[in-house]
Amino acid sequence: MNLTKYILQIHCPDQKGLIAGTTQVLAKAGANIIDMTQHTAKDIETFFLRAVFEIEEENIVEIERHVQTLEKHLQLNWKLFNTTKTPRIAIFVSKTDHCLYDLLLKHRDGVLPCEFSCIVSNHTDLGPVGGSFGVPFYYVPSNQDKSIQENRFREIISETKTDAIVLARYMQILSAEFTQEYLYKVINIHHGFLPAFKGAKPYHQAWRKGVKIIGATAHFATEDLDQGPIICQDIQRVPETVSIEELVQLGKDIEKRTLSAALKLWLEHRVFVFAGRTFIL
Amino acid sequence: MNLTKYILQIHCPDQKGLIAGTTQVLAKAGANIIDMTQHTAKDIETFFLRAVFEIEEENIVEIERHVQTLEKHLQLNWKLFNTTKTPRIAIFVSKTDHCLYDLLLKHRDGVLPCEFSCIVSNHTDLGPVGGSFGVPFYYVPSNQDKSIQENRFREIISETKTDAIVLARYMQILSAEFTQEYLYKVINIHHGFLPAFKGAKPYHQAWRKGVKIIGATAHFATEDLDQGPIICQDIQRVPETVSIEELVQLGKDIEKRTLSAALKLWLEHRVFVFAGRTFIL
Amino acid sequence: MNLTKYILQIHCPDQKGLIAGTTQVLAKAGANIIDMTQHTAKDIETFFLRAVFEIEEENIVEIERHVQTLEKHLQLNWKLFNTTKTPRIAIFVSKTDHCLYDLLLKHRDGVLPCEFSCIVSNHTDLGPVGGSFGVPFYYVPSNQDKSIQENRFREIISETKTDAIVLARYMQILSAEFTQEYLYKVINIHHGFLPAFKGAKPYHQAWRKGVKIIGATAHFATEDLDQGPIICQDIQRVPETVSIEELVQLGKDIEKRTLSAALKLWLEHRVFVFAGRTFIL
Amino acid sequence: MNLTKYILQIHCPDQKGLIAGTTQVLAKAGANIIDMTQHTAKDIETFFLRAVFEIEEENIVEIERHVQTLEKHLQLNWKLFNTTKTPRIAIFVSKTDHCLYDLLLKHRDGVLPCEFSCIVSNHTDLGPVGGSFGVPFYYVPSNQDKSIQENRFREIISETKTDAIVLARYMQILSAEFTQEYLYKVINIHHGFLPAFKGAKPYHQAWRKGVKIIGATAHFATEDLDQGPIICQDIQRVPETVSIEELVQLGKDIEKRTLSAALKLWLEHRVFVFAGRTFIL
Repeated sequence: MNLTKYILQIHCPDQKGLIAGTTQVLAKAGANIIDMTQHTAKDIETFFLRAVFEIEEENIVEIERHVQTLEKHLQLNWKLFNTTKTPRIAIFVSKTDHCLYDLLLKHRDGVLPCEFSCIVSNHTDLGPVGGSFGVPFYYVPSNQDKSIQENRFREIISETKTDAIVLARYMQILSAEFTQEYLYKVINIHHGFLPAFKGAKPYHQAWRKGVKIIGATAHFATEDLDQGPIICQDIQRVPETVSIEELVQLGKDIEKRTLSAALKLWLEHRVFVFAGRTFIL
Repeated sequence: MNLTKYILQIHCPDQKGLIAGTTQVLAKAGANIIDMTQHTAKDIETFFLRAVFEIEEENIVEIERHVQTLEKHLQLNWKLFNTTKTPRIAIFVSKTDHCLYDLLLKHRDGVLPCEFSCIVSNHTDLGPVGGSFGVPFYYVPSNQDKSIQENRFREIISETKTDAIVLARYMQILSAEFTQEYLYKVINIHHGFLPAFKGAKPYHQAWRKGVKIIGATAHFATEDLDQGPIICQDIQRVPETVSIEELVQLGKDIEKRTLSAALKLWLEHRVFVFAGRTFIL
Repeated sequence: MNLTKYILQIHCPDQKGLIAGTTQVLAKAGANIIDMTQHTAKDIETFFLRAVFEIEEENIVEIERHVQTLEKHLQLNWKLFNTTKTPRIAIFVSKTDHCLYDLLLKHRDGVLPCEFSCIVSNHTDLGPVGGSFGVPFYYVPSNQDKSIQENRFREIISETKTDAIVLARYMQILSAEFTQEYLYKVINIHHGFLPAFKGAKPYHQAWRKGVKIIGATAHFATEDLDQGPIICQDIQRVPETVSIEELVQLGKDIEKRTLSAALKLWLEHRVFVFAGRTFIL
Repeated sequence: MNLTKYILQIHCPDQKGLIAGTTQVLAKAGANIIDMTQHTAKDIETFFLRAVFEIEEENIVEIERHVQTLEKHLQLNWKLFNTTKTPRIAIFVSKTDHCLYDLLLKHRDGVLPCEFSCIVSNHTDLGPVGGSFGVPFYYVPSNQDKSIQENRFREIISETKTDAIVLARYMQILSAEFTQEYLYKVINIHHGFLPAFKGAKPYHQAWRKGVKIIGATAHFATEDLDQGPIICQDIQRVPETVSIEELVQLGKDIEKRTLSAALKLWLEHRVFVFAGRTFIL
């Protein structure tokens, strides 16, 4: 008997019997639930469920059929992921390499269950890094019309069978069309503790305000710059005597671990987006 | 229809179908699952489940019967808590009052779902605090035989219908007999980051070692002093220029919030003890 | 020989010889430097120095004379504090008591080197707390013209010889005139991680944004609501499944320790305000 | 006029006039103090001072002479560092590369003011990393007598003009002779929160104890395994559902940032060792 591992994500208006109902659907189809997490956000009366289960491949259609039946009745939003299909992730970078290295090294360490399909950059500097880790590198200069540039992105995404994009300190703004097209499939790292320090030079802003703690925020890129749903945040206390330049350096450790952590959550299908924010299960 | 809220705790050797099985038992008895958390500790192949559900009071026996049937078959350890029965907690103190106040204030704020049955102390100093919060105060001096003292504890526990004890900086050691009698029902706060600084004067030990971060540990009191299962820990960075006395003061904030947090986890029936440690669900 | 402990605060444009110059002035007057901290903020080319020293009371005028001589020449800003004059602090509260208790208990514990001159409130609820800690309580209702109310504050400040004010979750806005009059002498606790969540209901804002970490900010009250210089901040990770109400409760621990810590820094004369922010030495 | 930047470290029994005395010595020799930090550890009545100053190279002998004069009189321990002489650091590794990469990348980023003189390993795996960063790689197998191995270390240290060693997850134990020879010049990263989890497999120990927070500790290697003075520590909260393997992965982020931070402190001459612990200024 050959079992496949699937992950089911559900969210819907809260109502009685949702957990019992879901487990029954899975049980009937012969699925073995390995892991199940559930949360009801009472403030918005919404139910979230993530179930990891093993099933004989041929029986998965039965589950899909059952869930579809419930869909209208319960106003169900659901997604089903076959974990044997490894997501292919593109990494977009500019010149800074700390996030890129952290992703590549953690991936090689087995922490990030994905393949890196390509590295895309508006500079050539980090090409050799791609080379030494065996990830194809694409140079797409930014001194051209943004629509031409983004069409090139679409080609690369298609060629490399890319499922999602990680902006690892990519210093260009993506168009509203592009982020809409790949909605909740583009993860950005903002080097500030959103929603406080949007826009450019967040560490400079933080220093000028004299904040005592800085942070980094991994979020989905949306058309509202630095306002997409937050996936992951981390912080570090600011030594009082730090200069702006030292603050920038300090921030890099937070940035890289926050971005890697966000990608990991996304790859494990733990991220739900609802009511303008995420819920992580 | 008058529903009662219950919490079911289960842990047992990991095996297929545990989640589906449990939800079926609950569904059959007409229970509505509100919240369910489950975790499988792969390193020890053990399954943990906590389910919160509402049910008509008369149907709870059906669930008990079903779970008992599974007990032997699945080597099930289980407990069922009726949440309408508010636990009665005794607070043991000596002279220091920061943990006592934190517990009393958080309780009054509605954060801790319990009643404080009494305050017990080997000093009279904190009697007035009991008075101003309306909690009966018992003075049990420590200059007597420990067995006499602990018999007095047993009487007080019985008189005040106490379910569990919180040692809120109580500076006396309980006997092995006593901690065994109330196993996993006595929560202690150790003012050190266990297992590092057992025994007396942990902040002095920490200062002498030059540790850069101190912590507090809430744990169950067992016969092995400061070695009982850890429920909750918290830390704080040590400013390099701190004296031992300042370290002691610094630690108090961590102690009080850690102890209150541990009691809250226990009252919500989130604490499982297995294989010499806790699992918090 | 009867020595008095003083604290000297200096800040001025950075230039050569400032440390040597200052220590010479102190040495000449027979002062014994106990503790000296210095920081040059390179980004704004400004020098900050805090020196703690002991001196025969009669010689302090010599130091004042010397420093005044340097004042124009070096564009020196300076303050000199006699540590035997214990600052008298008023606590303003509304109905919430967690910050009030934390201040009173830490004070009794010897952590806060001040006297509490009075508790002022727009409600009568917390009067008994004042009573049990022996701090006079003044009820100044808010259902009257703000200028009448603030004149009453001025009277109380005068009667009780108050040096500074701590707003311990005081839920009224002070006028621009009042905050200007007591500039950098009114410390507020904002229950959000400024500058992110200004204004009302910051935890509600935080929950809606789905931030993963919340914080509290102690800052000087100025005419720009929630924009005064930040003194102290602290944070706590937000469990993903938390409700808004639980978030509010969670925040209280951070609020109280952040406010007490800010007051402590201010009492130790460690807080410098320059260029719209603080520098803590 | 050509100025050289020096750093002076002093520690001695506490006594009056130390700060004034030191600044006078520096002023007389025409030194310009840029930065000065001082701390008196009252619990052991010891004074620590770190001063950064600029001076004409020819005048430094005058300062040395003055300080030597004070040496006996004040029981002064002192060191003087010429900051134009960049320390040369050897990195010892085994097979794990996360700490190695973090050091190399932060160095290239300008964060670590040193040169890496060589990478030494008991395995050949990480040779290519050395190559791509231009740092010579030495393979010293561990399947030989430890004294032969350590003599080879001494040769390499001499050949490469190495000043100090960083053990970046080097999985061999150095002999008491070797650590004594390079006392306070060998920095180790222990993947546990010392002094709690000494010895092998600290994450396994931590998981079994059910600790709620793990940490890493950078310390000087001494003959007492994992007991040398602590330089730097950092921590991370343990998600309750984590496996041992995930704990190991989680720990890597803490390890790498803690080790890099410790090296930075050492390179900036901020680390004092006294009374069996460090004081960081």
